Amino acid sequence: MSLVSQLQSLLGQDAVLTAEPDVAAYVEDWRGRYRGRAACVVLPSSTAQVSAVMKACHEARVPVVPQGGNTSLCEGAVPRNDAEPAVVVSLARMRRIRTIDEANNSMVVDAGCVLAAIQQAAAERGRLYPVSLGAEGSCQIGGNIATNAGGTGVLRYGNTRDNVLGLEVVLPDGRVWDGLYALRKNNTGLDLKHLFIGSEGTLGVITGATLKLHPLPTAHAVAWIAVASPQAALDVLGLFQQRCGGVLSAYEMINDVQLKIVVDHVPGRRAPLPVSHAWHVLVELADTGGEDVLHEALQQVLEQGSEAGLVHDAVVATSGAQRAAFWEVRHSVSEGNKKAGMGINTDCAVPVSAVPAFIERATQAAHAVVPGAPIIIVAHLGDGNVHFIPQASFEQWRSWPDADAVAHQVKHAVNEVAHSLGGTFSAEHGVGQVLTQEMALFKPAVEIDLMRGIKALLDPQQLLNPGRLLPAASNPPR
Amino acid sequence: MSLVSQLQSLLGQDAVLTAEPDVAAYVEDWRGRYRGRAACVVLPSSTAQVSAVMKACHEARVPVVPQGGNTSLCEGAVPRNDAEPAVVVSLARMRRIRTIDEANNSMVVDAGCVLAAIQQAAAERGRLYPVSLGAEGSCQIGGNIATNAGGTGVLRYGNTRDNVLGLEVVLPDGRVWDGLYALRKNNTGLDLKHLFIGSEGTLGVITGATLKLHPLPTAHAVAWIAVASPQAALDVLGLFQQRCGGVLSAYEMINDVQLKIVVDHVPGRRAPLPVSHAWHVLVELADTGGEDVLHEALQQVLEQGSEAGLVHDAVVATSGAQRAAFWEVRHSVSEGNKKAGMGINTDCAVPVSAVPAFIERATQAAHAVVPGAPIIIVAHLGDGNVHFIPQASFEQWRSWPDADAVAHQVKHAVNEVAHSLGGTFSAEHGVGQVLTQEMALFKPAVEIDLMRGIKALLDPQQLLNPGRLLPAASNPPR
Repeated sequence: MSLVSQLQSLLGQDAVLTAEPDVAAYVEDWRGRYRGRAACVVLPSSTAQVSAVMKACHEARVPVVPQGGNTSLCEGAVPRNDAEPAVVVSLARMRRIRTIDEANNSMVVDAGCVLAAIQQAAAERGRLYPVSLGAEGSCQIGGNIATNAGGTGVLRYGNTRDNVLGLEVVLPDGRVWDGLYALRKNNTGLDLKHLFIGSEGTLGVITGATLKLHPLPTAHAVAWIAVASPQAALDVLGLFQQRCGGVLSAYEMINDVQLKIVVDHVPGRRAPLPVSHAWHVLVELADTGGEDVLHEALQQVLEQGSEAGLVHDAVVATSGAQRAAFWEVRHSVSEGNKKAGMGINTDCAVPVSAVPAFIERATQAAHAVVPGAPIIIVAHLGDGNVHFIPQASFEQWRSWPDADAVAHQVKHAVNEVAHSLGGTFSAEHGVGQVLTQEMALFKPAVEIDLMRGIKALLDPQQLLNPGRLLPAASNPPR
Repeated sequence: MSLVSQLQSLLGQDAVLTAEPDVAAYVEDWRGRYRGRAACVVLPSSTAQVSAVMKACHEARVPVVPQGGNTSLCEGAVPRNDAEPAVVVSLARMRRIRTIDEANNSMVVDAGCVLAAIQQAAAERGRLYPVSLGAEGSCQIGGNIATNAGGTGVLRYGNTRDNVLGLEVVLPDGRVWDGLYALRKNNTGLDLKHLFIGSEGTLGVITGATLKLHPLPTAHAVAWIAVASPQAALDVLGLFQQRCGGVLSAYEMINDVQLKIVVDHVPGRRAPLPVSHAWHVLVELADTGGEDVLHEALQQVLEQGSEAGLVHDAVVATSGAQRAAFWEVRHSVSEGNKKAGMGINTDCAVPVSAVPAFIERATQAAHAVVPGAPIIIVAHLGDGNVHFIPQASFEQWRSWPDADAVAHQVKHAVNEVAHSLGGTFSAEHGVGQVLTQEMALFKPAVEIDLMRGIKALLDPQQLLNPGRLLPAASNPPR
């Protein structure tokens, strides 16, 4: 019996897709830049079915690509097109919220739950699941966990990793690890969940998770602040941390290039301040107490910043609508950038203190490749995570004989700068297949060696998401 | 050349202890209950020296026991007495604070730094290193990390694991992994630091760490609250979380048995409330803003709790001295318990919601073994971590033909109850050598199997801290 027939008999006909139109959405990267090849797509409805699929693939020695919402920015969620066609295991049918324990501030969910559905279920119980990102309407929690998703809530609540208490994982050979602990303290040996979080589907298929919930903030204070420089933005961040400690919830920075793109290209967006400034910060305080206390703290810091010459201008949102309008400017950057030209996207993080140096040196490095290119900057400044995006016009891009090579050269130059400052070439997007060479270049040899050892231990046949995350063995790390 | 001579030539004579009186403090468990055998004790002064020691031991195939402040409660930091004498690698001479980056809220430290020294260095810069525990005056950060130390700050700031950004580790073969990242976001492959955190010295020797710092709270509000039951304490916790969200810093519960012991046996300690009550909660709010705001929130919740019949009585600390006095009662439990009798200590955690059921059933289980024994309870209630301590008088303990067997039976019965409620037999103390059998009994076979695989990968000769953490291979997990 062929593997496809076997999978059909295990899951039922309707849960195994083979016709090209049915398969298309699962093998194409969501930005439409990469198309892989699949033996079939399976849609299991339970952990037991995932286990049966993995066993069958393991015995047949056929590669497997686990897939959540397929929103990877690194082409990490689709099968390869240069190797044996893989079985794509989509978790889309596993979307149950299994249990919510209010007193424990935790919930157990299927891996296929969409992030927004989890946020909503938590909010209905007066709780917050704090991970928030652009793709939240379609990305799945399993994918979030497999890639340790970041977003705008990291400053206060940490990455996805910090909000997972337990995991259920099907191993490459089909064994199920039930690690759905719901404990705040558990010192009984190696904490295996951290091995799977961020492993990008290379070590097992995450089928369920216990998530950590937080009190739902009911009061907010939001301001849009103009500052002279990244260093000034950083100094104001220090003032906020000193005064507002635990209620500082977001600290996002964009430059004038980014703001102008959003205002010019996204209908309905307006600059929050009347006069143009070089650098802008969106700050949010949030708490469960009274809003007046937050506004008082916000005003105090703004005055302090103003007196110190750090804050040039600022506007505080006076209504929920205005608060939403400020955030809409921030959330419209991808849409604006897509319309405005060809952005050469990077996703570096450096120590927060090194952000100004990073921006300065990365600008020089990018301009050495593409002189005078406008630089779009949108940063989760509180986390040291800078999306540094040199931009080409559509005409310019088309005029380059090998535009991809130019883009690659720019990205690498920017990543080199981050590395020289103790930073990383991938803060939140992961490695996927587009950054495996950077892994070989920038990670210490002993670290790559340990990762390869663990991969070989869990997946000796190298069947799970092959060609992703780790550099090819023929690519020696430095 | 013998290994000892080799080590002497590598580190110098004064850094290799062999005389029994010199070695004694390093081979005896701090409670004086276990004494191991060492080939020698080495005191390296640098990561390079640790690497040289590990290489030499690896080549000689001699076991190695890394040691921090030797404050393990599970006999995890001393060598065995039933196997080949080990080389004890003490990190005590590596106690430099390497760098502090205020803007990044991080510091890089040697593994041998004492926890209290780190807290102080952070406070001098207006920052908080939030892990706090009884042994902080002598335990070392390397040991904290190797055992993922918990304590009273976990509710707000997480365990040690959550406060480590990067690690420097010497592997069993002497290779050095420089993973001293200082980044808030870094999605570049498996996050190896989490493999070493909590591995109790079985996978490598931690020589340095990058720690995460937080804003130093400058305002505090502390109350001592009497409640009718653990469930009432839990309901009040819910009120605090809803009202105070991010500023709730500690929520500790003790019962009347525990309070009476402290008051009766520790000089200078007084009950904060005039009338006796069955259950007591110590709550702390802390923030960087004004103290009045905290006290207002505290009062509001106490009134809410009182109206709901949950709070029987409460006293709010009105001065720093009174606040310290309340905490001194909490911090005196170990001293009191040691003087009052023989405590059969356990360290379980369950989901927070399951604490009342745990206390009820564990009491039944303990009384089935030792009818009528007083039960001391001291709980980090916000984390679901209950130190459930059936007590025997000194006379009773001496009257038992095999007191250790009775204690073992009681502990195991309590751990069974925790397990049946989705809990753990070791919340914060770790496994060491005293709980390896519980590992075999309570952990899923696939989990033990993965742990053993990782141990074999990193330490194929099984030289690091042998007999600790993992059950003997002859002890099959269920």
